[in-house]
Amino acid sequence: MYIGIDLGGTNIAAGLVDDSCRIKLKKSIPTGAEREPEAVIRDIAMLALGIIKEAGIKKEDIKAVGIGTPGSVDDARGMVIYANNLGFRNTPMAAILKKYYDVPVYLGNDADCAALGEAYAGASKNCEHSVMITLGTGVGGGIIINKKPYSGFNHAGGELGHMVIEYNGRLCTCGRRGCWEAYSSATGLIAMTAEAMQKYPDSILWTMHDDKVENISGKSAFIAARKGDAAGVEVVETYTRYLACGLTNIINIFQPEVLSIGGGVSHEGPYLLDPVIKIIEEERYSKDMEQTRVVLAELGNDAGIIGAAMLGKGR
Amino acid sequence: MYIGIDLGGTNIAAGLVDDSCRIKLKKSIPTGAEREPEAVIRDIAMLALGIIKEAGIKKEDIKAVGIGTPGSVDDARGMVIYANNLGFRNTPMAAILKKYYDVPVYLGNDADCAALGEAYAGASKNCEHSVMITLGTGVGGGIIINKKPYSGFNHAGGELGHMVIEYNGRLCTCGRRGCWEAYSSATGLIAMTAEAMQKYPDSILWTMHDDKVENISGKSAFIAARKGDAAGVEVVETYTRYLACGLTNIINIFQPEVLSIGGGVSHEGPYLLDPVIKIIEEERYSKDMEQTRVVLAELGNDAGIIGAAMLGKGR
Repeated sequence: MYIGIDLGGTNIAAGLVDDSCRIKLKKSIPTGAEREPEAVIRDIAMLALGIIKEAGIKKEDIKAVGIGTPGSVDDARGMVIYANNLGFRNTPMAAILKKYYDVPVYLGNDADCAALGEAYAGASKNCEHSVMITLGTGVGGGIIINKKPYSGFNHAGGELGHMVIEYNGRLCTCGRRGCWEAYSSATGLIAMTAEAMQKYPDSILWTMHDDKVENISGKSAFIAARKGDAAGVEVVETYTRYLACGLTNIINIFQPEVLSIGGGVSHEGPYLLDPVIKIIEEERYSKDMEQTRVVLAELGNDAGIIGAAMLGKGR
Repeated sequence: MYIGIDLGGTNIAAGLVDDSCRIKLKKSIPTGAEREPEAVIRDIAMLALGIIKEAGIKKEDIKAVGIGTPGSVDDARGMVIYANNLGFRNTPMAAILKKYYDVPVYLGNDADCAALGEAYAGASKNCEHSVMITLGTGVGGGIIINKKPYSGFNHAGGELGHMVIEYNGRLCTCGRRGCWEAYSSATGLIAMTAEAMQKYPDSILWTMHDDKVENISGKSAFIAARKGDAAGVEVVETYTRYLACGLTNIINIFQPEVLSIGGGVSHEGPYLLDPVIKIIEEERYSKDMEQTRVVLAELGNDAGIIGAAMLGKGR
């Protein structure tokens, strides 16, 4: 058995995960991210010990605790190098946790853990090489090579959202112009929706949101498009093309067996994915070869817990 | 000792390479790419046997023959899946070669072999993770992860030149619009130079080329820029920015320890590379982390031979 921890800015979710990647028990507590790292990590240890107690198993039954955290981690040294929204910086997470619960501790980036979870138990099960994209506030990327997360020599790789796809395009939060994230995140989608509303004063998007641009969400354009609203249709088409552009880039670079799409925007399902796949099929390189399957992620929030747990698998 | 073969559309270059990646003897013959694959592969075997004879060593002294070829290869099955300019398609290269010389045979893509050569003996020596870019007729990419070429589940990955960096931009030979290759290859550079000449009728680029646009080469804009010609300066600046854009993408995705640049355009040296690095330093993500070194490739044409030879190392 393993314990997988998904450490987020708002909540810490923990799960008891068996060797077949089944979550046997799940618990969650608020992160309290404003606190010192030591206090947060102590809570993680207590959460793990609480799960063991509640499950009625022994501490020794746990092979490892895996922790997925935002930012960059150095697993070999047990360090969180940098996690901005948690205030972690060169934090010796493994050593602190072991003070409260002496167990092998493995660390991973949260997007990598989600990708690893999908690779063990979800959309990319049985694949050696896969990539997972999360369409949320940003565009997150998890690269799995030989069934292991890949994050470069400095543990900061996999920033697939910060690949420029439109030279001199939209300003991204990272400071560059034209990053994929500026188009394909929910944030980018909302910005495009607001712009389209200015262009279409008769759009139902206005009445849908009480004439308030600040009420727009990542779902707005899709709801309007499904009703045939011209502004909604235009935004969804544009969003689809940019999403397909970045995904095609990833296929040309990685040729993963499976490229899975998760995160809030992915809940639009086949209405989003089918036209995206059509564009990818036209645009990708190496059309004669066996093709990457582009699919929806399957595990939702459990992916992060399962992937974190599997950091300890086979070690 | 190993034998490394760099199979090109024009020539086959072969080298006897020792365990320390030194080329002890080098031979080259014309490819004769218009012939049947069987005849080309027989010549490769004869070339290898010729090297052994000339070096005065025994067949048994050779641990393996590694072959770098254009296109896609399936090393595990010893097959060249597809190499357009050689007419190879599902060609059992290892099996054919072994008919003439029974030795372990390993196959790799040519860009991957060049990257592997640099990783063993050149610009990215001692790096686990590195990427090499070749700026030639196209933009080639070789991805080395854990000291091994990475090419995806279908052996067609690493097409870094076919990453769109300008949505709806220049038409690429692959059919997409805005691929990095359309801007950063010598071909793209020549096209940009020709366009700038139309805009600058007084440019020295006209007299340099006897008023003939067809005489432009990948060096033209750099020669003119070094002399202060406005058209040349503009082209070099534009080329620099697009090159830096693609390289920054690669760093954000891979965070390789070294990103090396080879191929014809790279011969412009620091005049090209210094301003490129300046832009990358401003644009890359994870500025707080240890940084990828962006450098010129070191081995030139030998990279392919050494990398092919090293396909057999440690196996």
